[in-house]
Amino acid sequence: MLTIDYANCLSDRVGSHGIDPAVLDPAGPGASAIAAHTRSLASTRGTGWERWRDLPFDPVRSDHVGQVRRVAQACAGKFENMVVLGIGGSALGNIALQSALNPPTYNLMDPPARPGPRVFVVDNVDPATFGAVLDLCEQRGGLKRTLFNVISKSGETAETAAQFMIVREMLSKALGATYGENIVAVTDPAKGTMRAICDKEKFATLPVPDGVGGRFSVLSPVGLFSAAMAGIDIGALLDGAAAMDQRCRTETLAANPAAMLAFLLVELGTNLGKPNHVLMPYANSLYLMADWYRQLWAESLGKRADVRGDTVFAGFTPIKALGATDQHSQIQLYREGPNDKVIGLMEVQEFSRDVPIPRGLGVKNLAYLEGSTLGKLLNAEKRATEFALVESLRPNFTITFPRVDAYHVGEFISLWQIATAYAGLLLGVDAYDQPAVELGKQATFGLMGRDGFESFQKEVAETLVPTDRRV
Amino acid sequence: MLTIDYANCLSDRVGSHGIDPAVLDPAGPGASAIAAHTRSLASTRGTGWERWRDLPFDPVRSDHVGQVRRVAQACAGKFENMVVLGIGGSALGNIALQSALNPPTYNLMDPPARPGPRVFVVDNVDPATFGAVLDLCEQRGGLKRTLFNVISKSGETAETAAQFMIVREMLSKALGATYGENIVAVTDPAKGTMRAICDKEKFATLPVPDGVGGRFSVLSPVGLFSAAMAGIDIGALLDGAAAMDQRCRTETLAANPAAMLAFLLVELGTNLGKPNHVLMPYANSLYLMADWYRQLWAESLGKRADVRGDTVFAGFTPIKALGATDQHSQIQLYREGPNDKVIGLMEVQEFSRDVPIPRGLGVKNLAYLEGSTLGKLLNAEKRATEFALVESLRPNFTITFPRVDAYHVGEFISLWQIATAYAGLLLGVDAYDQPAVELGKQATFGLMGRDGFESFQKEVAETLVPTDRRV
Repeated sequence: MLTIDYANCLSDRVGSHGIDPAVLDPAGPGASAIAAHTRSLASTRGTGWERWRDLPFDPVRSDHVGQVRRVAQACAGKFENMVVLGIGGSALGNIALQSALNPPTYNLMDPPARPGPRVFVVDNVDPATFGAVLDLCEQRGGLKRTLFNVISKSGETAETAAQFMIVREMLSKALGATYGENIVAVTDPAKGTMRAICDKEKFATLPVPDGVGGRFSVLSPVGLFSAAMAGIDIGALLDGAAAMDQRCRTETLAANPAAMLAFLLVELGTNLGKPNHVLMPYANSLYLMADWYRQLWAESLGKRADVRGDTVFAGFTPIKALGATDQHSQIQLYREGPNDKVIGLMEVQEFSRDVPIPRGLGVKNLAYLEGSTLGKLLNAEKRATEFALVESLRPNFTITFPRVDAYHVGEFISLWQIATAYAGLLLGVDAYDQPAVELGKQATFGLMGRDGFESFQKEVAETLVPTDRRV
Repeated sequence: MLTIDYANCLSDRVGSHGIDPAVLDPAGPGASAIAAHTRSLASTRGTGWERWRDLPFDPVRSDHVGQVRRVAQACAGKFENMVVLGIGGSALGNIALQSALNPPTYNLMDPPARPGPRVFVVDNVDPATFGAVLDLCEQRGGLKRTLFNVISKSGETAETAAQFMIVREMLSKALGATYGENIVAVTDPAKGTMRAICDKEKFATLPVPDGVGGRFSVLSPVGLFSAAMAGIDIGALLDGAAAMDQRCRTETLAANPAAMLAFLLVELGTNLGKPNHVLMPYANSLYLMADWYRQLWAESLGKRADVRGDTVFAGFTPIKALGATDQHSQIQLYREGPNDKVIGLMEVQEFSRDVPIPRGLGVKNLAYLEGSTLGKLLNAEKRATEFALVESLRPNFTITFPRVDAYHVGEFISLWQIATAYAGLLLGVDAYDQPAVELGKQATFGLMGRDGFESFQKEVAETLVPTDRRV
């Protein structure tokens, strides 16, 4: 079971930079706000944009897992490479699961050590990267042995659409009429541009369920399919998510991990001058989980809000860091720079393997390392950093993973998703929209010459008139 | 030649969130401060901790390049894998050069497409990652065909020392007396623990030059050796760095790229409430350059300083982001969250290759993409984002790369190194020390049982007494 230790967020540890413990009092206003929000979340769960909370539970779970396993089984053994085409919420969860639950050398391994195809998640339209990945697939098995997993609810996301158009043409040239067998689309089950293409071209599809926004979709087929293809235990992932969801139903602040996490971060972020929220796992495998968290926390809460008639720019800046590596890069700033951060450390109690540090070098100044292990050193560094942060009055908390496995990763995902729902309520913002993303999309359409968006060409040109402010 | 367009940092574009153009006036206080600092940097160059400025110039350059090429030549053809062992400044530059100048699929390619060994930079003591990389090397060519490049000036950095001890034992067991042929150390040429080990065990070595701190060392053998082994044109890299250094010698603010960059960021950071400094390349290859920048900017400037008798916590929080990917993750926050950031966009004019988007899908809403290219789409997205940021009054600038090649990457490295020196002078902090990193190192020694540091065990235990603040 994941635990959160938040003692270092309190004023008895970090002085005026921490929360007065009385604020967390069961009879205090924080606890009563959380109780009200817990009731509110209970009443909205499974409705509107909160249908993501149903994903780990039957009947939705069985339906999705059944569909994902059927398609994965049909693909089994046929492909050496799998290229996921998606961006934002259609990519970050896939990347996070792969890097958390498979070794960093996964793509370099041969079967049976590698239980599924190589997995490439191409979440950008950088031509050099996209070209390099396609070349590699041609060289390693060829296009015939490469599966493309297109993920787009509408099919109109420019980046994914462009990738899809390129891949469709390449496959159909190389493979002829059967090229559709190399595509699995995760898209809207009933409507939209991608749906229409899939129906016409008879691609295998999996659903992006209604009421599940991109950044809350990793536990749907969006994230489950590539995970299943790569041998990840999606059942254990959903078990962990379900267990965390159950823990987060209590109205008691001190017993509800997601409510506590949200309350601490909102309180530190809005009332104590700590709007920068670092997540710093002491485990390489969890580093890209922090990218998934970055989208969830930034895009859900970074909102212009109306608070009692005033316009407020709400939200917090999520930052990813890696322990112990970033001790040699960011800790100088975290300890002596502006005290504007909450640092979320993450530690792993038992690594999937450990590496002993041998005896026998015979150098006095390094003798203390002999007979220890890398895992012990990494955890000592985490504890030393926690100590150093407290010494300089920097609020921090620790999320402890007993092990990094599918179950605990599922718990982690659920923890942050539910914390985000709480934080939205505490801040008075809609955690499920992203209105400020639209203008850039429309301007891109305009610059690319899409019908109906021509006016943006002029508007962009007028706003960004060239000047001599250039060096 | 790299250029910086900073029009969007000024108040005529972003209102009160921007700098009054009068502040940049040739007769104003900014220009005169920069002129004084340029003179100061001219007088200190090549002395003290500013000896990094000599690296791209003879005689230092020829000496280093000659040594690096000799060792690389001696290694040529002998190794299928190269594992770099280092952390912080002994790793971030290596990672940045590899990812900027070689394709993301480099390690998956076979010779001759891959001109050197596979390169793994292992900059953490995570046992799962380290173990996986060692396993992979054993499977792909074996230890005999694996070169270990240990980078540590002193040899006492705990993480690198532990890695080295493990590798030394493995190699000596597997290869017997000749195992030293599989190690190249980059270390102090004259003194220290690693120097003594190298002398005793007869490893090939390359120098970490005096007066070149870790985060300013990428253009020394620290970064050059792995680059040369992987086929990167280190001559062009140093040419670019030298050219940028020349451009940054003028006392005229408006003509000095590093001075302008530093002045804008310090002004926005300290006087206009924008202490968060994002670097967001629209090119996957440049994304990990942003990690190198993160160390440089955070560790050099994040300092407790004494300003006219008051204690000030100086510095800025560097943040890395990736365009267009992070438009679907961070832009909602950057546009509608707190206006506390300067966003450094980076664009590439000509990609090493482009990928056309074919005609023929026949879907009306996607017709605008047909006949374009991924490169054009990516650059349109960059311009659209710049426009959207200005519309919401968010200061931003653009660094333009004509191409991503060794020369322009050299320019970029030199630009930020010199900008950091200016920023240190503008903030009144020592850009070359990192005093706040020490406490964590000492506490780690204590927790690991090193002689002389026992008192930290008690101190850590007393500071971090277990509580029931845990959920």
